[in-house]
Amino acid sequence: MLSEHEIQIRVRYSETDAMGFLHHANYFVYFEEGRTELLRAQGGNYREMEEQGLFMVVVSLECKYRKPARYDDVLSLRTRVVRITLAKIEHAYQITRGGELLTEARSILACVDGSGAVQRLPAIFHPTQ
Amino acid sequence: MLSEHEIQIRVRYSETDAMGFLHHANYFVYFEEGRTELLRAQGGNYREMEEQGLFMVVVSLECKYRKPARYDDVLSLRTRVVRITLAKIEHAYQITRGGELLTEARSILACVDGSGAVQRLPAIFHPTQ
Amino acid sequence: MLSEHEIQIRVRYSETDAMGFLHHANYFVYFEEGRTELLRAQGGNYREMEEQGLFMVVVSLECKYRKPARYDDVLSLRTRVVRITLAKIEHAYQITRGGELLTEARSILACVDGSGAVQRLPAIFHPTQ
Amino acid sequence: MLSEHEIQIRVRYSETDAMGFLHHANYFVYFEEGRTELLRAQGGNYREMEEQGLFMVVVSLECKYRKPARYDDVLSLRTRVVRITLAKIEHAYQITRGGELLTEARSILACVDGSGAVQRLPAIFHPTQ
Repeated sequence: MLSEHEIQIRVRYSETDAMGFLHHANYFVYFEEGRTELLRAQGGNYREMEEQGLFMVVVSLECKYRKPARYDDVLSLRTRVVRITLAKIEHAYQITRGGELLTEARSILACVDGSGAVQRLPAIFHPTQ
Repeated sequence: MLSEHEIQIRVRYSETDAMGFLHHANYFVYFEEGRTELLRAQGGNYREMEEQGLFMVVVSLECKYRKPARYDDVLSLRTRVVRITLAKIEHAYQITRGGELLTEARSILACVDGSGAVQRLPAIFHPTQ
Repeated sequence: MLSEHEIQIRVRYSETDAMGFLHHANYFVYFEEGRTELLRAQGGNYREMEEQGLFMVVVSLECKYRKPARYDDVLSLRTRVVRITLAKIEHAYQITRGGELLTEARSILACVDGSGAVQRLPAIFHPTQ
Repeated sequence: MLSEHEIQIRVRYSETDAMGFLHHANYFVYFEEGRTELLRAQGGNYREMEEQGLFMVVVSLECKYRKPARYDDVLSLRTRVVRITLAKIEHAYQITRGGELLTEARSILACVDGSGAVQRLPAIFHPTQ
């Protein structure tokens, strides 16, 4: 199974802050887009998953900021599955610009139903399917 | 009925952009907070309204930007009901800083149910209640 | 001169709200991206313009919301120059999804220098160049 | 020196997502507001610091999400300095609602000048001042 995917994201003006850089909170928006597109590349679809009553909620995040990004920069975001358990999935992220590493991050998400009860991750996430 | 309400909002760093100003899209976030607090001051509660299956959707917006706002500025937002019909409500907004007018705006919202069908505005919005 | 440009934008999860729709303030983020890309298609570059000390500030906006957009929708945004004066430019926007019109908007931007003084619009914006 | 500060933040509608919860990226916006207000309570002022050419940049973040927050919730954010070195400062954050712990986080920020060169943290941050 495909467990890694890369997308290009251009930094929007509204995503910058008064320091002139991409604001640190907005990286998590990019990582979320990375997960959406990795799942799509695997043949899954997160919107349909939600329509069927399953939600992926963020349990924990960590991020290291090495160099800043600026408005109009084209960034490469590599999203990778690093661990899967029955109900949780861990991703690693790398953002680079022209080959230079800007940011590294990790997240753990859990699968829950509409009431917040933990659910088994759908088969599409599992490497053995 | 109270048809006007003022709140103070301090500009967050994340709401600024590389120009060093409050980004123009974020004013609409403030106007929405102004509507929430005006309704609360009137004895209503928008969260409860949604829990009962009624939603206020934005139909149109217009905004004139006269002077910019900056990080950490304390702004006064005055929200006023200017017109109410069976299913729609029109608000006017003024943002000032130390008495100086920065921004003026108007919005029209409609009341709909979960399927998007137009509904009568709840009594709490009506001046004659 | 090219005075119209279309881009595709996929709605991010973080751009939705509790109603399940693209939040109304986020359309202005899209329109800004539309202006950036229209200028690029014309041979200009807004980042370089700012580096040279010229800024385009939003003077006024208006937007009509006809139908909502949802997470993961692929939207078409058509950005068009409708009027240019010495220091101001007016754009019109249309957002469609599968040919269906969702949103229409207009904006006026002015060209200023770092101190906020009005400046002549750079030649790249002018249709007669 | 005051090394801990608590503020109340009401969740805005625009900060929620289609799941109906406060979006996970927006917590970092709240933490930043917590830092701004802790510094103000200590007698400092981050805007003035930037005007004097010093910037606090985020080096790393981590966050654990225990329970979700919803629109209109009033959250308590406790921001605490846990470690200070010559050029870096580490904060810990706790978000609670009615005494219930929702979120815990840590961040490390570094002091830099306009060119990104590391600078000594201003005296206001130091507990021995």
